[in-house]
Amino acid sequence: MEPNPSSIEIPMATELHRVAPPPPRTTFDKLKSRLKETFFSDDPLRQFKGQSSRNQLILAAQYIFPILEWGPKYSLRLLKSDVVSGLTIASLAIPQGISYAKLANLPPIVGLYSSFVPPLIYAVLGSSRDLAVGPVSIASLIMGDMLRREVSPSQDPILFLRLAFSSTFFAGLFQASLGFLRLGFIIDFLSKATLIGFMAGAAIIVSLQQLKSLLGIKNFTKKMGIVPVMSSVFHNIHEWSWQTILMGFCFLVLLLMARHISMRKPKLFWVSAGAPLVCVIIATLLVFAMKAQNHGITIIGKLQEGLNPPSWNMLRLHGSYLPLVAKTGLVTGIISLTEGIAVGRTFAALKNYQVDGNKEMIAIGLMNIVGSSTSCYVTTGAFSRSAVNHNAGCKSAVSNIVMAVTVMVTLLFLMPLFQYTPNVILGAIIVTAVIGLIDVPAACEIWRIDKFDFLVMLCAFFGVLFISVEQGLAIAVGLSIFKILMQITRPKTIMLGNIPGTDIYRDLQHYKEALNVPGFLILSIEAPINFANTTYLKERITRWIQDYEAENDDSKNKSQLKFVILDLSAVSALDTNGVSFFKDLRMALDKKNLELVLVNPLGEVMEKLQRSDEAKELTRPDGLFLTVGEAVASLLLSTKSNSSNCV
Amino acid sequence: MEPNPSSIEIPMATELHRVAPPPPRTTFDKLKSRLKETFFSDDPLRQFKGQSSRNQLILAAQYIFPILEWGPKYSLRLLKSDVVSGLTIASLAIPQGISYAKLANLPPIVGLYSSFVPPLIYAVLGSSRDLAVGPVSIASLIMGDMLRREVSPSQDPILFLRLAFSSTFFAGLFQASLGFLRLGFIIDFLSKATLIGFMAGAAIIVSLQQLKSLLGIKNFTKKMGIVPVMSSVFHNIHEWSWQTILMGFCFLVLLLMARHISMRKPKLFWVSAGAPLVCVIIATLLVFAMKAQNHGITIIGKLQEGLNPPSWNMLRLHGSYLPLVAKTGLVTGIISLTEGIAVGRTFAALKNYQVDGNKEMIAIGLMNIVGSSTSCYVTTGAFSRSAVNHNAGCKSAVSNIVMAVTVMVTLLFLMPLFQYTPNVILGAIIVTAVIGLIDVPAACEIWRIDKFDFLVMLCAFFGVLFISVEQGLAIAVGLSIFKILMQITRPKTIMLGNIPGTDIYRDLQHYKEALNVPGFLILSIEAPINFANTTYLKERITRWIQDYEAENDDSKNKSQLKFVILDLSAVSALDTNGVSFFKDLRMALDKKNLELVLVNPLGEVMEKLQRSDEAKELTRPDGLFLTVGEAVASLLLSTKSNSSNCV
Repeated sequence: MEPNPSSIEIPMATELHRVAPPPPRTTFDKLKSRLKETFFSDDPLRQFKGQSSRNQLILAAQYIFPILEWGPKYSLRLLKSDVVSGLTIASLAIPQGISYAKLANLPPIVGLYSSFVPPLIYAVLGSSRDLAVGPVSIASLIMGDMLRREVSPSQDPILFLRLAFSSTFFAGLFQASLGFLRLGFIIDFLSKATLIGFMAGAAIIVSLQQLKSLLGIKNFTKKMGIVPVMSSVFHNIHEWSWQTILMGFCFLVLLLMARHISMRKPKLFWVSAGAPLVCVIIATLLVFAMKAQNHGITIIGKLQEGLNPPSWNMLRLHGSYLPLVAKTGLVTGIISLTEGIAVGRTFAALKNYQVDGNKEMIAIGLMNIVGSSTSCYVTTGAFSRSAVNHNAGCKSAVSNIVMAVTVMVTLLFLMPLFQYTPNVILGAIIVTAVIGLIDVPAACEIWRIDKFDFLVMLCAFFGVLFISVEQGLAIAVGLSIFKILMQITRPKTIMLGNIPGTDIYRDLQHYKEALNVPGFLILSIEAPINFANTTYLKERITRWIQDYEAENDDSKNKSQLKFVILDLSAVSALDTNGVSFFKDLRMALDKKNLELVLVNPLGEVMEKLQRSDEAKELTRPDGLFLTVGEAVASLLLSTKSNSSNCV
Repeated sequence: MEPNPSSIEIPMATELHRVAPPPPRTTFDKLKSRLKETFFSDDPLRQFKGQSSRNQLILAAQYIFPILEWGPKYSLRLLKSDVVSGLTIASLAIPQGISYAKLANLPPIVGLYSSFVPPLIYAVLGSSRDLAVGPVSIASLIMGDMLRREVSPSQDPILFLRLAFSSTFFAGLFQASLGFLRLGFIIDFLSKATLIGFMAGAAIIVSLQQLKSLLGIKNFTKKMGIVPVMSSVFHNIHEWSWQTILMGFCFLVLLLMARHISMRKPKLFWVSAGAPLVCVIIATLLVFAMKAQNHGITIIGKLQEGLNPPSWNMLRLHGSYLPLVAKTGLVTGIISLTEGIAVGRTFAALKNYQVDGNKEMIAIGLMNIVGSSTSCYVTTGAFSRSAVNHNAGCKSAVSNIVMAVTVMVTLLFLMPLFQYTPNVILGAIIVTAVIGLIDVPAACEIWRIDKFDFLVMLCAFFGVLFISVEQGLAIAVGLSIFKILMQITRPKTIMLGNIPGTDIYRDLQHYKEALNVPGFLILSIEAPINFANTTYLKERITRWIQDYEAENDDSKNKSQLKFVILDLSAVSALDTNGVSFFKDLRMALDKKNLELVLVNPLGEVMEKLQRSDEAKELTRPDGLFLTVGEAVASLLLSTKSNSSNCV
């Protein structure tokens, strides 16, 4: 890294390549292309190009209703696979539906209603072949928690139900609007680290809530945080029921073992898929046979037979509860959307087909809007259930239809069978389901790769555990965005050196063989230059110059600094502050008798510099080069010819 | 741009340069250097390095009290210049002080108090040689407006005054903390465009408020928005006083002419600097001589003689008004800080000396904290007054001391002279002062350079005019940050082509001579890859591949795509989502039989890829090159030798 002029041989440029001004484009063109990149980055209308209008009409219909695309090609062979997988996920969906509804403080039957209508809607509108639709644990938890803060589900169950349906309506409306306005990228702001921390926190919160049914406590806290729940558990030891605990413990071990088997041998997926239903049946039979409900074991009780009643008249879309249901809808909508889209994309990538995120949002949104008027609460594609669906060999959304039909049969004829199902088994099913959300290996990987992401993850995790679900999430998202802003506010500036024998210039810190070129300070700026970083960049460049001069003073190797070369290859954008930055920098360097040379400004940067009267001068040909190598070679040549002229 | 294989001759690499792994650094080292860049980017402690401890002590004292640095070197010659400039700014500060205090709904004398103590404090602590300290129009307006929304200055003047002092205290505390915690970069988030729009809007709001005194209206609205003010003006036509209007009009013309002269000939700066005081004197004499106060012209009235009374016992730092004063302090603090720092930096750049932003913040903050307990309201360095100071030839902060002494003399002996000063002249002085804040040429320049910045400016402008000062500002800042986030969320991906005869690769859209290399898709990504853009980048790269394949289908020139080269020179950072992105992309490309090749990953990117088990494979030597040229040359060579082997 020490400059040693004799050892550096800069290849002389035989020919200089000029920086061209970018081709002219109108403001309208630029706006159009920017809007396209922002909202239509996946170019969903590509297939319509160059088609006859009749074909376009057919394509449009298929675009809106994907079932029209795959439906005609559907075959009996595919149906066989879908029936198997549909029945498999139904056996999982029925006990989970009942459990998750209880998690949301809703009547258990609402969970089954929600596993009937939404899958049918999704089968028509959705484009994923693997998504298994139904209620999910985290959205259920959040909805139950947020609504319970204002309305008691036990004292005013009807109002609570109305608010749940209304929240579902808002969630659907919000999801569909995001998709329709092509604002789907908003869910990208939940980074992997945020989600892993959040999921783990939520899983623990959900599991702790199950202590109520697993221990048989009657006077349980209404709060969600880890502190009030644990204190509630230990202040009510006298309420613990040993029969419940025994039963819960046995079934929990059974379910966890089944889960373990399926995880070790993915071919045995049906073990964990069928286990919940088998447990429910065994537990119900046990309770019925032993009349255990008289021995401290609480049961679900009588459930109404029949299909979903209409509920559009129960929606409360105005009045004093509006802010509550809108906020609940927003949070549950975002969370369930994130899960649904992530699941859809994961399995699409595995099977190598495309899923249009924005279209999926519309499908999920419409499914929830329709759901809210047919007694369903918020639903989406669940990860665990979709994995079972995929493992069971599903081929299309028909597996959702099969599941819905199975649930329908259950609703119509099998409801009395659930009367003696003990609550404790539902708790065990929920704990087994959410335990998979705690992803320790992923957390370790994050720690290895990026410490700041790990911090974000911890914030999400502890925020959810100790503050609240929404605030934990908000803190983590805020921190992630703050990190991005800090990257812009404090962009990297790298000092480049020549790799001997080439005209390649690379980071002096990184490439130990790279050498400083005496008399040149070559800096690369690694971010757009804008209002947030111009002050910093000015100070940082001053410091680079001071450091350079101090170092050369020390080494007695008095090669005076003459040129400051800024490599702008990585400066993707410039704003008005950025233009002033170049103007000011040039003025400051002039005062120190240093020449400022720019290398490879990209189209937008070049254009903006040229548009400003005062910065235009920076783009004159002798101060602008296409590569660092050419700049150095040309400037060395000109100083040499100058000095020889002087002689 | 059309690929034409025969015409492309890729220079063959004689030697390949490998991408080196970055030198190992511990997490602690990285954290340290990141913290240094974030908080100490200007390296303020540089001067302490390698000094003896005695010298370090002296330097530390000089660092905290810059007066110790320049004081000992101060000479009589400098004093002469400072006395001239000090008297000049005093002649401006006295009428402006009275006027701005009225703008803040405070007793006029508070404006003079605020021109006495704070300049003295600043002279000891501040490092700018040109800053002229005192009350400023916009901070006065904001404070007056924000406090008046909750307390009426006419019905409860004592409470109002207490709240003003308390807000000043909070403003100072906030400013000093920002500087002390080295968070000064927060004010950078007010971009040039935001400030220009905001200043212009505020200038109009301030001018409209002066219609009260310029027209002599008594029942004026208490609101700030343009709509209520104009309706108040025209609903009270019967209150208009022709004597006031005549007098106001004449003096306004006089002051504007003086301003015009000084702007045309900077040497005549004293014309506009002295004009306000001259006008006040003439107007006061006129009123006194003609007993005009009996003919509809309102006057200031009796002012108390004497220096600043202590006011620390008037601060209300708790109780029900706390949120109000804290908020007011925050907003006025930020705004006045922004003005003060910008002024300091501007003149420092002109005279080629350094101003440490964070140290200035501490100085301004302490000045306001002390001010709040000596009957001063919020003060800072005003742009117009500092320009006069600079033009008058000030050499150091002594000009502030001279000004303070002049104000002191005024407070002690000359107060009775102001009794007959008409309010209308104060209105005219304010209008003349703020009219300079409307910077039309700068607005035009912004329109030319950056349309989005222009939009930000308009939002700030109309937000201030029609909504409120804080909300207009908040909208503009939000929009600026949104733009940065969008640049990250939708980063540029550029398709590179070879410039014939070289190994330079540049944007195909920009450089028309650049040519596609058949079989290669060479993309450059121009942003850090993180959670906010991985989904987009995946979709965008898929689209580039589809476009490439479609184009080559059309042209019948079936050069099948084999390699996707990603130039990562501009990818300054990577997070865990970014690592997954590479993993997923590689999987997707494998399925299409495409090979993914990375070029020039920077230190951090390289490091993170290597730390992930699944992405590590991407950094194996045969898929990683130092330049695009070497990658293309080497891959072409390997495919040729493969095909010749097959033959």
